[in-house]
Amino acid sequence: MNLISITTDFGNLNGFTGTMKGVIYNINPHAQIVDITHEIPAQDVRSGSIALWRAIPYFPAGTVHIAVVDPGVGTSRRPIAAQLGDQFFVLPDNGLITPMLEDAESAGKPVTIVHLDKPEFWLPTVYTTFHGRDIFAPTGAHLSRGVPIQDLGTIITDPVRTPLPKPTKTGQGYNANIIVIDVFGNCSTNLPVSQVPDLNKTSLKIKGETIKGIVPSYGHRQPGDLVAVTDSEGFVEIAVVNGSAARAYNIQLDEPVEVRFHD
Amino acid sequence: MNLISITTDFGNLNGFTGTMKGVIYNINPHAQIVDITHEIPAQDVRSGSIALWRAIPYFPAGTVHIAVVDPGVGTSRRPIAAQLGDQFFVLPDNGLITPMLEDAESAGKPVTIVHLDKPEFWLPTVYTTFHGRDIFAPTGAHLSRGVPIQDLGTIITDPVRTPLPKPTKTGQGYNANIIVIDVFGNCSTNLPVSQVPDLNKTSLKIKGETIKGIVPSYGHRQPGDLVAVTDSEGFVEIAVVNGSAARAYNIQLDEPVEVRFHD
Amino acid sequence: MNLISITTDFGNLNGFTGTMKGVIYNINPHAQIVDITHEIPAQDVRSGSIALWRAIPYFPAGTVHIAVVDPGVGTSRRPIAAQLGDQFFVLPDNGLITPMLEDAESAGKPVTIVHLDKPEFWLPTVYTTFHGRDIFAPTGAHLSRGVPIQDLGTIITDPVRTPLPKPTKTGQGYNANIIVIDVFGNCSTNLPVSQVPDLNKTSLKIKGETIKGIVPSYGHRQPGDLVAVTDSEGFVEIAVVNGSAARAYNIQLDEPVEVRFHD
Repeated sequence: MNLISITTDFGNLNGFTGTMKGVIYNINPHAQIVDITHEIPAQDVRSGSIALWRAIPYFPAGTVHIAVVDPGVGTSRRPIAAQLGDQFFVLPDNGLITPMLEDAESAGKPVTIVHLDKPEFWLPTVYTTFHGRDIFAPTGAHLSRGVPIQDLGTIITDPVRTPLPKPTKTGQGYNANIIVIDVFGNCSTNLPVSQVPDLNKTSLKIKGETIKGIVPSYGHRQPGDLVAVTDSEGFVEIAVVNGSAARAYNIQLDEPVEVRFHD
Repeated sequence: MNLISITTDFGNLNGFTGTMKGVIYNINPHAQIVDITHEIPAQDVRSGSIALWRAIPYFPAGTVHIAVVDPGVGTSRRPIAAQLGDQFFVLPDNGLITPMLEDAESAGKPVTIVHLDKPEFWLPTVYTTFHGRDIFAPTGAHLSRGVPIQDLGTIITDPVRTPLPKPTKTGQGYNANIIVIDVFGNCSTNLPVSQVPDLNKTSLKIKGETIKGIVPSYGHRQPGDLVAVTDSEGFVEIAVVNGSAARAYNIQLDEPVEVRFHD
Repeated sequence: MNLISITTDFGNLNGFTGTMKGVIYNINPHAQIVDITHEIPAQDVRSGSIALWRAIPYFPAGTVHIAVVDPGVGTSRRPIAAQLGDQFFVLPDNGLITPMLEDAESAGKPVTIVHLDKPEFWLPTVYTTFHGRDIFAPTGAHLSRGVPIQDLGTIITDPVRTPLPKPTKTGQGYNANIIVIDVFGNCSTNLPVSQVPDLNKTSLKIKGETIKGIVPSYGHRQPGDLVAVTDSEGFVEIAVVNGSAARAYNIQLDEPVEVRFHD
């Protein structure tokens, strides 16, 4: 398998990800490279892990995902690679892998994680400020050529974990939070719709506004209306029809959402 | 042919287009994918259709163009695929296809359009908020593998059309409009230069400014000058040499331009 | 070799680079295309040359680099192609090639530069405003298919050169300048760390602030500290740990940096 994805907080200004691709093609001339996003907010490990988490289920078996959101670059934080089921990951050991790892574990998929401690798979010179180019890109390229993950480093069982906040049960429903705000200003919560017994008999409170019912799609309400829908991953989402909920109601990441079930 | 282009208003923030590419490679591992742009203003179908329209003539025969600017996602608007001459399109039926369709018709090229109503070519679960991933990407991937377009749905002859504004003839020339503003602030009108009898004997009026003559290139005037040139598609363009006409003269989309021919 | 990189100041708004890729695939269906960056500030030839210069060493032998930052498009400035060692370049003759050319010359690598004056390798119609699509993309595609560079034009020995500012020696060290500001706000100088005799016995002055010592990595200081480190190309860099030096200290391109060596 030659498919490699790249996710970073590098932006597209400086050619950093283009340089990583040069490194990859040097090692695997048959690589096919997909950018997931390079616009993760700078050093925001949680947003990086969520972007990856939402994209990964749609990639073919054997894909290698290189992810670099790495505030600890150049310190003693470990570079790691992981096989979670049929997907591979190459990234810093700072929690970035958490939601994918939790999913693999709860699905009973095979999990192998190695500390990347074999410089023969890196570039000859490793700068302390750009491990994406000097460690993660070459390691990912070797993985995509079929080098076994065990050859790339030493097996570890204690990766850093930074779990996403989970919704908490209340007497009448859940206290949830906004964990993703997309480019349209749609705001996804951490509450799976599968936890909602009846979409019609649910009300949500956010920023002092009350939303009655979760509708099947934006089109079930009028432009400008604040609505709750099922997002594209199966979570409850707050949106404004043909508008931006984030902007209209000044919603930030972590914003609390009170979800109540009623008769 | 394995070439697929993608055009959306998704931005590059959330990994939506990366996810679509994962879907495509799952179905066609030999796909070659080109991003046309993902920065169409949110839900601006007309800008999306213009971006596509300008890029399409430069793509090889057999290319599949997936385009998602889709304010009606999740409503009853139809997903469609079209063959226009030797190019293929997969997109919502909201007018996005109009300029390519008009061109194909006026050139007498073969036109086939189908309503995508066969879920066996989609992802198993279709969310109402992300047909780009769940319907358009898999359909485009199947097309690129050679599935005949007729197999993907039911033939229709009434696609939604939203024609671009056309310049209107006046006694002395044309009333035109700005229909594209590019990243440099260059402003293209909807008037083809082929309608101008003599480039030197033409004057243009926009925002109270008068421009005399249409010059062969920016270099024929001084930096800072407001000029009229031929744009890269053969239309009359208003520009500021080494500057931004849009910013300097506060030009918006649809801005009227009076074009007068004289002796 | 089918690998082609593209660097422009076109942004990602209008589909210009997507269109160039359509042109390339028309000529070389086996092309593999890497975007280095399309966010060079409009018409900033120097920033374009620096972005290329930093990425090029990481690309495989035989890569064709198409670069379009071209304020003189449509004037008499020459389009050129160059072979510098084992890398190929296709770009306007406006100085964009300077740092790569200087490096190749000082390393004694073979240098061949041609004026692209053979329209048979271009698109049939060349618009004066988009040579990226009409001249540079098709020429790069032909090069990537193995057309010898000498066939594409007439050999020249007088390309336009616009050398980067060099640090100047002082009694106690160097007067350097900021020449790159990256997306994190890290500011690279033009002073190679190899010119610094003792990292600990060095102080730097920028914007009235004094920094003592050059540290091995960001992690050697506290979040928020202004530090000097070695950047990812081996130059002295000014940074704020987990922050933006450019924003915190209002540092611009060309900002002077006084470097003093002491006992």
